[in-house]
Amino acid sequence: MEKGRLEAFSDGVFAILITITVLELKAPHGVNLAALASVLPLFLNYVLSYVYLGIYWNNHHHFFQLVPRVTGSILWANLHLLFWLSLIPFATAWVGAHHTAPIPTALYGVALLLPALAWYALQAAIIRSQGKTSALAKALGRDIKGKLSPLLYLGGIGLAFIDTALSDALYAIVALLWLIPDRRIEAAISA
Amino acid sequence: MEKGRLEAFSDGVFAILITITVLELKAPHGVNLAALASVLPLFLNYVLSYVYLGIYWNNHHHFFQLVPRVTGSILWANLHLLFWLSLIPFATAWVGAHHTAPIPTALYGVALLLPALAWYALQAAIIRSQGKTSALAKALGRDIKGKLSPLLYLGGIGLAFIDTALSDALYAIVALLWLIPDRRIEAAISA
Amino acid sequence: MEKGRLEAFSDGVFAILITITVLELKAPHGVNLAALASVLPLFLNYVLSYVYLGIYWNNHHHFFQLVPRVTGSILWANLHLLFWLSLIPFATAWVGAHHTAPIPTALYGVALLLPALAWYALQAAIIRSQGKTSALAKALGRDIKGKLSPLLYLGGIGLAFIDTALSDALYAIVALLWLIPDRRIEAAISA
Amino acid sequence: MEKGRLEAFSDGVFAILITITVLELKAPHGVNLAALASVLPLFLNYVLSYVYLGIYWNNHHHFFQLVPRVTGSILWANLHLLFWLSLIPFATAWVGAHHTAPIPTALYGVALLLPALAWYALQAAIIRSQGKTSALAKALGRDIKGKLSPLLYLGGIGLAFIDTALSDALYAIVALLWLIPDRRIEAAISA
Repeated sequence: MEKGRLEAFSDGVFAILITITVLELKAPHGVNLAALASVLPLFLNYVLSYVYLGIYWNNHHHFFQLVPRVTGSILWANLHLLFWLSLIPFATAWVGAHHTAPIPTALYGVALLLPALAWYALQAAIIRSQGKTSALAKALGRDIKGKLSPLLYLGGIGLAFIDTALSDALYAIVALLWLIPDRRIEAAISA
Repeated sequence: MEKGRLEAFSDGVFAILITITVLELKAPHGVNLAALASVLPLFLNYVLSYVYLGIYWNNHHHFFQLVPRVTGSILWANLHLLFWLSLIPFATAWVGAHHTAPIPTALYGVALLLPALAWYALQAAIIRSQGKTSALAKALGRDIKGKLSPLLYLGGIGLAFIDTALSDALYAIVALLWLIPDRRIEAAISA
Repeated sequence: MEKGRLEAFSDGVFAILITITVLELKAPHGVNLAALASVLPLFLNYVLSYVYLGIYWNNHHHFFQLVPRVTGSILWANLHLLFWLSLIPFATAWVGAHHTAPIPTALYGVALLLPALAWYALQAAIIRSQGKTSALAKALGRDIKGKLSPLLYLGGIGLAFIDTALSDALYAIVALLWLIPDRRIEAAISA
Repeated sequence: MEKGRLEAFSDGVFAILITITVLELKAPHGVNLAALASVLPLFLNYVLSYVYLGIYWNNHHHFFQLVPRVTGSILWANLHLLFWLSLIPFATAWVGAHHTAPIPTALYGVALLLPALAWYALQAAIIRSQGKTSALAKALGRDIKGKLSPLLYLGGIGLAFIDTALSDALYAIVALLWLIPDRRIEAAISA
């Protein structure tokens, strides 16, 4: 089957998710800087969630350039990924309102962990349909970053019960890891 | 007429509907597990509605691969389908807030029944424009699953007044029926 | 310039507008039929607004099949149309909450009148760029329906101060007028 | 890499942002003209924000017609632009509720300034990938309007602490500057 609609539908969902969280940024009641500062914690969480959703969209965009055809399994693996991503705005709103509370901070880590696992499952479904010698499988290689990230999220979830600032730092570090340009896929597209 | 915009517009509506319900998952006021557990019933209903909308999107995606041209009737039959699908978030929010109440549970069944009938009307509009010997008509065959589902939804609506758990189980079973890969269309696309 | 993005962007806006109003349908607090009935007036207005937005999308879809190239003026005429359409959910929410009040009912008529005028301006911008002998200009002919509709909306606005039911009836009649299949454009596309 | 998904995803985000603000226009509680007038300040700010987002979409549409291929840097520069645009609805809601307060009015200027800088960065990323002799670089020329706008926004931010009406006037003037048809890009597309 053609991949066009999978991409178009996913782009729609990504566009909505990346903008939904900003809906939680309610206009403050007061009109001074203190009123504006009251939305700062949620704003910072919005930035982090935006970056995460941007990374997923970016990787999705890169990946599917190497996927000429899709199967029923790929469609569902993609819907499964989008499902977990759809919970990021909820987790962001909760931790944004209680940014030093351990359980919301841990849940935010869970909300990052589950799409990471779903991404792994989507990769597996694509490689299963293309074979282990496909351009995508070769471009991924050992995929160390993909395997390390879930462990780091688990670390962040655990640290939330010691100091939520440590969790926040770890979540931000994983985002930075993914922001460093990764030329594997672009090289494979050129080749 | 070209089918591209029908698909793009439908993808947009599907993307919005599949993510709207998650907007109802409000961040809990407390910060403990009990607070998080309070959103669990709505979360479970969100999962079920997500799966249903995913099934419709998936079937829509499969179907329109066998529809090279669209007519005015198909455009309206599609808008009619999207209308009833647009009420699923409303029904989900109501039953999610009152998951053991018979009328919200029955209404959720109605909200599943009406798109099923609208889907049937869309199929009929497409087959009318293509003829009974088209690839799509042949791929559908006797369409037992399509004919059985409305009866099962009616059963769920009735059971809501006896025990809402039975309705919920039946709604979940119909979703599972549709999740089982159905190769009719994919086989027709390959052929 | 290519028309693809004008269509894609418009489809996105249409998809959002057609589903935004349903967000106003809040889950009732009670769990009986009376609670459900309390959302009925807003539901009926939602149906009417959905049909109107569906008609605009449908006409937009037909029209742009006869527009191979777009100009800067067409882009802005289209944004202008989408602006007025974006106020339909607001007007729907107000009249849905006060369906026998004259001013909300009149405003709903204004919210139908302004996109009708914007549509007319969009038609004019397209015909100006294509010339009066283009397929689209010929397909439109004297465009009696397009010229009559604004007068009927004006009638509905006036009647709101006598009896809002008369306005509602007139708004519904105009929608029906546009639902009657209009083969001018489809014939021109085939030709 | 292909630019199709960058455009489709951006169109989705633009479509959402341009319609999100209208969600803040809540149906008034009363049913008279005074009740309707109470939403007027927010409505006027909605008009201005709509025009600004329309200008960005329009320029984005023009620009990317001269961008045949995208790089990882362009994808992120585009996400960066969309991020700052996503804060316009928030700033609109705040200033709409307090239209004579200096800090909300200044913040609205900041919300216009930051996307302007992000746009500049996006231009730079595109020109870096295409070379200074590309059609786009030539079409931009000295880009006086692009360099002047941030200064005018800064002026508006400063004036907010003297008289918010002056800021509003300046923000409106910059919008008008950009509404005047700018044929540089269209000429380059034709050429």
